[in-house]
Amino acid sequence: HGSFSEEDMLERISDYHENDIAEAFELLSEAERKRWYRMFGPEQIAEIFSYIDDPDSYLKELPLDEAAKVLSYMDSDDAADILDEMDDSTQEKLVGLLDEESGHDIKMILSYEDDEMGSRMTTNFIVIHNNLTIRQAMRELVQQAGENDNISTVYVLDENDKFYGAIDLKDLIVARQQDNLEDIISTSYPYVNDHEKVDECIERIKDYAEDSIPVLTQEHLLIGVITAVDIVEAVDEEMGDDYAKLAGLTAEEDLKETTAQSMKKRLPWLIILLFLGMGVSSVVGVFETVVAVLPVVMCFQSLILDMAGNVGTQSLAVTIRVLMDETLSTKQKFGLVVKEMRVGFCNGLFLGILAFVFIGCYIWLLKSNPITHAFVISGCVGFSLMTAMVISSMVGTLVPMFFHKIKIDPAVASGPLITTINDLVAVITYYGLAWLLLIHVLQMV
Amino acid sequence: HGSFSEEDMLERISDYHENDIAEAFELLSEAERKRWYRMFGPEQIAEIFSYIDDPDSYLKELPLDEAAKVLSYMDSDDAADILDEMDDSTQEKLVGLLDEESGHDIKMILSYEDDEMGSRMTTNFIVIHNNLTIRQAMRELVQQAGENDNISTVYVLDENDKFYGAIDLKDLIVARQQDNLEDIISTSYPYVNDHEKVDECIERIKDYAEDSIPVLTQEHLLIGVITAVDIVEAVDEEMGDDYAKLAGLTAEEDLKETTAQSMKKRLPWLIILLFLGMGVSSVVGVFETVVAVLPVVMCFQSLILDMAGNVGTQSLAVTIRVLMDETLSTKQKFGLVVKEMRVGFCNGLFLGILAFVFIGCYIWLLKSNPITHAFVISGCVGFSLMTAMVISSMVGTLVPMFFHKIKIDPAVASGPLITTINDLVAVITYYGLAWLLLIHVLQMV
Repeated sequence: HGSFSEEDMLERISDYHENDIAEAFELLSEAERKRWYRMFGPEQIAEIFSYIDDPDSYLKELPLDEAAKVLSYMDSDDAADILDEMDDSTQEKLVGLLDEESGHDIKMILSYEDDEMGSRMTTNFIVIHNNLTIRQAMRELVQQAGENDNISTVYVLDENDKFYGAIDLKDLIVARQQDNLEDIISTSYPYVNDHEKVDECIERIKDYAEDSIPVLTQEHLLIGVITAVDIVEAVDEEMGDDYAKLAGLTAEEDLKETTAQSMKKRLPWLIILLFLGMGVSSVVGVFETVVAVLPVVMCFQSLILDMAGNVGTQSLAVTIRVLMDETLSTKQKFGLVVKEMRVGFCNGLFLGILAFVFIGCYIWLLKSNPITHAFVISGCVGFSLMTAMVISSMVGTLVPMFFHKIKIDPAVASGPLITTINDLVAVITYYGLAWLLLIHVLQMV
Repeated sequence: HGSFSEEDMLERISDYHENDIAEAFELLSEAERKRWYRMFGPEQIAEIFSYIDDPDSYLKELPLDEAAKVLSYMDSDDAADILDEMDDSTQEKLVGLLDEESGHDIKMILSYEDDEMGSRMTTNFIVIHNNLTIRQAMRELVQQAGENDNISTVYVLDENDKFYGAIDLKDLIVARQQDNLEDIISTSYPYVNDHEKVDECIERIKDYAEDSIPVLTQEHLLIGVITAVDIVEAVDEEMGDDYAKLAGLTAEEDLKETTAQSMKKRLPWLIILLFLGMGVSSVVGVFETVVAVLPVVMCFQSLILDMAGNVGTQSLAVTIRVLMDETLSTKQKFGLVVKEMRVGFCNGLFLGILAFVFIGCYIWLLKSNPITHAFVISGCVGFSLMTAMVISSMVGTLVPMFFHKIKIDPAVASGPLITTINDLVAVITYYGLAWLLLIHVLQMV
């Protein structure tokens, strides 16, 4: 280290991709980081920060005016993300120190809610008017490209400065001088509204497979764009969120979180589930008498409940993904419920028969019960298993649809309700059947 | 419909984005589709097909030579995807009819396994040599852009035709004639190997936030690129797969699947779980005597098992996401296990106390048991709940780490094993404690 001059070092480091430099940067001590800030200067530090997950903690190491310079060089959406993490007074001070243009862009992005498309857009894009010639358009592009590096789509405004369309850069590059600009403008280009919810439009814009999508106001003014990289991030985030919710977490967790933060994300679910579980327990309590006289039946309670739970989760996961991806007609929804029940029935029949045979043999041979006795009990298990699986499939499909209908996030609300309903159904079917068949009809005790 | 001439119609339709045209196309009858094929011609049909999820069924509606033409116009990776869905003899016939260049590219892509990066790449990219001037490079770009529309990154080869680096198109556009091409080439550009597994490198290349990433052979020959759109797709797929696996499905399902296909994806899990569940049942059977003399304890079995399962799933989901995202040192892994157990303990203590108080009151007041009796039982429940939660957290973290270590997909293998271990732990703790404390020590019966 001591043997390199700073210039040598800078040159060697600059050979690497910013993402790799950022990774190295995060391994440095504070003293070394301070040396880097000085060595690289605000423009390159801004580049490096845009590849770091939580750059706000590092930005705090810089004096306010330096920090403001770094923010000015960053893409407006990245800068807004960082400012969002700061306390209000620091945020205000920093925004005050920004140059006019960056300040305006960042304030606009900060004015949107976190779940609105406006909060994800960048103001880094190329825009021209629709009355230019090909040559003029090309000149504009070269001029604007110095500041804005999202050049693969050139956006076009009409004479009233409203959004008119978009040009694929490739078409502009291969166009000949005498061609008409109008001919290469795609006027039916997809767009999103600034106040649209991210999770509601991400699946739609993903399908267009474009490098960037314009963000328009209600009045069709072009105020930003969503880039493919933003889309990757948003898809990753949405899916990560769904994943976390399926696992009963209120949000995604990462390695760095403290015990208290993790507890906060997990407890809400667990408390709700505890009380719902107590409800189920009190229903099981009703069947105490069955178990008291025929203790063998209680061995298979966990089996039936677990299986009902597993089937319900399968249907839930399928339904949530379908609801997320497409808008379903009532007929399609009905079709999905019927299909899920059919799958539940077929799987249930198969597993029910397996359970009937294997559990029957187990009770007969290993617990040395009379053969009829054994197979009547295993018949109860098999039949309950099948019934529970059909009903679980139905519940696992209907409940998320219901929450989706009343605009409550089905991924969050469905889990505990489905578990509880399925547990109840399984317990009542199983013990009810055992009580009726074994004790009352067959009078086995 | 009848009132429009075909030209009118074509012009009106062409105003829309290909993705919207594709959506409309899928709603047509076969006769209407056949009319579209004729009307649009192979180049535009190729465009439309690239926005359709399963275009192979539509391609079959075309005569073989027409179909080959459409494939030639498609991006090589999209064409390869379609051919992958066809039976071997049709595939062979179609590949034989392709023009030489497309045929070569598509055969190369088809030669990779589905989970290798090579199968996801496209050969649609711009490549130049590093000895050109800025002006020559620009001319090359314009020439190649007619055929290849992924132009935002220009790839550079050295004199041996090996991968040398990449140029951001923006830098090429703003460069002045007298500048040196070398100065705008980034020689430390990230890349992937053609045989790398998609799920192993997607998280890494996502972080570089580039519009495209080159795919190199072992010998550093540039054979294709992965675009941002491919990355969105791969991220979506990977996460969708994780999601499906967490829910106990072997793969993602969509609306169109038949009952038999869905059964096939769900049954493997369920059969394994059924037999593991039978194992748990036989352990529960050991405690039959406890339940026979003290039936009230069995009411809370479902509560403890469900909670242990929920906590285990939470730990599992967190661990899997962490393992997916980063390479952990042994120290970090140990840290994660300790943290998960700490979270499990804290949550368990809290919920255990809640259970102790509420269940105690329930048994005392609603089931009219003596107060000491009631709270000794609820104490058993609370203590077992806490123990089960700590152990579940540990198991939910260790099991996926173990499978990750021995290179078995933890997302698939962990679920059933964790459920079973947790059920066993919970059952043994709870009934064991009840047996020891209530029957032997306190001799409550």
